[in-house]
Amino acid sequence: MSSFLRVLVVAAALAASAEATMGATDTPPSESLVVTASSLGQKALSDPAAFDFVASLTTEIGQRLAGTEAHRRAVAWAEARLKAAGFENVHSEPFTLTAWIRGAESAEIVGPVPQHLAVTALGGSVATDANGIEAEIALFRTYDDLLAAAPGSLNGKIAVVTQRMVRAQDGSGYGAANRIRRRGPSEAAKRGAVAYLLRSLGTDSHRLPHTGALNYAEGTRRIPAAALAIPDAEQLERLAALGPVKVHLLLTPTVQENAPSWNVVGEVKGTTHPDEIVLIGGHLDSWDLGTGATDDGAGIAIAFGAARLIAALPQHPSRTIRVVLFGAEEMDFSGAAYAQAHEGEAGKIVMAAEADFGARNVYSVQLPPGAAGSDFGRTLERVIAPLGANLDRRPALFGGDDINGLQKAGVPVASLRQDGLDYFDTHHTADDTLDKIDQKQLDQAVAVWSAFTYLAAASDVDFRSLAATTK
Amino acid sequence: MSSFLRVLVVAAALAASAEATMGATDTPPSESLVVTASSLGQKALSDPAAFDFVASLTTEIGQRLAGTEAHRRAVAWAEARLKAAGFENVHSEPFTLTAWIRGAESAEIVGPVPQHLAVTALGGSVATDANGIEAEIALFRTYDDLLAAAPGSLNGKIAVVTQRMVRAQDGSGYGAANRIRRRGPSEAAKRGAVAYLLRSLGTDSHRLPHTGALNYAEGTRRIPAAALAIPDAEQLERLAALGPVKVHLLLTPTVQENAPSWNVVGEVKGTTHPDEIVLIGGHLDSWDLGTGATDDGAGIAIAFGAARLIAALPQHPSRTIRVVLFGAEEMDFSGAAYAQAHEGEAGKIVMAAEADFGARNVYSVQLPPGAAGSDFGRTLERVIAPLGANLDRRPALFGGDDINGLQKAGVPVASLRQDGLDYFDTHHTADDTLDKIDQKQLDQAVAVWSAFTYLAAASDVDFRSLAATTK
Repeated sequence: MSSFLRVLVVAAALAASAEATMGATDTPPSESLVVTASSLGQKALSDPAAFDFVASLTTEIGQRLAGTEAHRRAVAWAEARLKAAGFENVHSEPFTLTAWIRGAESAEIVGPVPQHLAVTALGGSVATDANGIEAEIALFRTYDDLLAAAPGSLNGKIAVVTQRMVRAQDGSGYGAANRIRRRGPSEAAKRGAVAYLLRSLGTDSHRLPHTGALNYAEGTRRIPAAALAIPDAEQLERLAALGPVKVHLLLTPTVQENAPSWNVVGEVKGTTHPDEIVLIGGHLDSWDLGTGATDDGAGIAIAFGAARLIAALPQHPSRTIRVVLFGAEEMDFSGAAYAQAHEGEAGKIVMAAEADFGARNVYSVQLPPGAAGSDFGRTLERVIAPLGANLDRRPALFGGDDINGLQKAGVPVASLRQDGLDYFDTHHTADDTLDKIDQKQLDQAVAVWSAFTYLAAASDVDFRSLAATTK
Repeated sequence: MSSFLRVLVVAAALAASAEATMGATDTPPSESLVVTASSLGQKALSDPAAFDFVASLTTEIGQRLAGTEAHRRAVAWAEARLKAAGFENVHSEPFTLTAWIRGAESAEIVGPVPQHLAVTALGGSVATDANGIEAEIALFRTYDDLLAAAPGSLNGKIAVVTQRMVRAQDGSGYGAANRIRRRGPSEAAKRGAVAYLLRSLGTDSHRLPHTGALNYAEGTRRIPAAALAIPDAEQLERLAALGPVKVHLLLTPTVQENAPSWNVVGEVKGTTHPDEIVLIGGHLDSWDLGTGATDDGAGIAIAFGAARLIAALPQHPSRTIRVVLFGAEEMDFSGAAYAQAHEGEAGKIVMAAEADFGARNVYSVQLPPGAAGSDFGRTLERVIAPLGANLDRRPALFGGDDINGLQKAGVPVASLRQDGLDYFDTHHTADDTLDKIDQKQLDQAVAVWSAFTYLAAASDVDFRSLAATTK
């Protein structure tokens, strides 16, 4: 069964069981919860706090690549912001990572005629020689074409994959194409290539390439790898159709082992069950090319803005809300670090959710298995419908890179799905800047998040056992 | 009287005189001309020649900055293309220019915190010191604010002007803002500035700055000047509102005196009046950042495509059609060179028109004074209306930079106005690439140009004396 079909079958079964459950446990949700959650949502729609947060971060700090001085500045900035906003227990939890620092990067067509190519190194890429690499390209229009190439057939060549990424509201185009960036360098190396270029995983047509991390396969030669801007990938396609093309590529990134990072934490303490935790967050680190406005300044602004409104309520909800601004998502370090540090606490985290998909409106919410039919789910549905968001009966299968470690440790996760139709126009590029954020849409996301977070923290539903019985 | 009001008054007078003329000379246009011109238009709508022309030029040659080896390659390419398409008298007319060659260019905010700025040197800018310039900025939100600054008030500072350019279909936003780029560097220098930055003259919001030529004032210190990408200009506005901002700027362009260029020419010889010339063209040179697809690969493709269809007719029109691919428009050299070389011939050029405003559809045509009411004008109106273009009763005041010298020598000019609503999103940036061209819209432009060019060349109207009597 394809994984997509499997999801459908599971979803159908869950929907059926949710209906059955609803009949059995149908108690009216507390009207006061609905009133408070709805009022939070309305406040969020005209609250400038989230936009101010991301405007200040991207203006006063700018890019904040994990492991660098810029990220350290961002951590101090974030702690001060959380404290000023009235969060409790504000602190930063250190961990280390292998930091990767971009160096010079350039590419030129040297034959048939000289032309500049817009490229950017993939995160984690090794460097070329100081003088760069000059080689003929072998161009593949799909990744499967590259995989079909025989071992040795790319000896001495620069492999180029120009497969297009599909634009989709839910970001599924990125998921489908991700292996081209993650695995492509090693697959090319296995076939003899000396370097690897891919058409940026993006949906725009600007001369601004999209970076992103690669994953070298163990035991395979590590070759330098970079992304081409989309017009440049198309230029190579046209030129390659006319004859041999030779490219010069220079990348000089460096690596720093045991670089410091921090997950920044602030809490809104619960009243009657302060040891039960609803964990929400996003990531404070960003790629270095833009200012990390939509990835993920917006995400942490949303979590901050939602929790801040709840903190200002005359009475906090029963459970504790913990906001975590993760410190190295782009290089895949912070989620694992957090899960490891909080291993003993996993059972106390009743639900986790991460905002890491841009700055647009939430159109749909997916909950842990069984939760859609619970009191919590039904109340949430009532509150978010007027905000323009649906409750999706399919369970959340994935909540975000930074809470994936928690999820593996048994923490139920939710997914508040934002409109990502244009997210990959600027994702991981120099163009990820504040002007790309529509404040009204950001505020809608804060509204849905505030209702979701408040209701989860005010609920006594045990999402973990609900998920266990629904499985 | 403002020049805009003056235009309206002149236009109203002309419209009135045109009505009067129509009554007096109202003979039905030759139906065979209408049939032929309409058929040319229809052919153009599905003729791939123009798109193929610009695709080949931008792919096989790429950028072609005047005075460089790349432009020399473009000249050879263009001659071969014109010959292969059946043009007569194909040749290139040499001239020299002061070529300006971009070097390294970078800018960084160095305080309050380090941040990268996307900049590009203005064409003609002098270089900074080899180590760059580091200075505090003085930011002006309008150009008039800069002009209001007292002499000496900018001593030792980098002047920054962040005035916005207005998006307008007819490109008038660019005309209004042009002095900010052309004159700003010298105005800043007069007030003591050591360098000059402006918000790019553009309507996008990408990290791709817009280059373009400056004009240093005689007798004023020449200071380095560059354009900021629009998000970067906005970032400086936000930072400057918070306190002092220090910027490091490095520009290392060089200049080559007496660099060679050529205006490439091809003709469709007229039958009965071959010495009367309808001159159409665009410019072959481009800025160096993109591949010059919309500026002006599209323009010369349109002129080429239109003339090529006429060349293929069983019978050529009475007058000669001369296609000129100008060789240094961006640096303001080719029009003057052409006018000077053809000084004695100006009286033979019955009309000139230049396509240099992108790749979109022609929505309106402006003719020399008096021509709208002539047989030619009325026939043209009939033929282009079904193509979605109007005849504008206001006379053409300007036909293009490369035919401005001819116009000053008395040559009547027409203006085939293309939709420029998004032209300045990519104009003079790295983003001016083939993917920005919509082939259907380009073909519509070729259709209108082919009808216009054919009818002008088949006409016996003396546009020069018509203009003289209408003035």
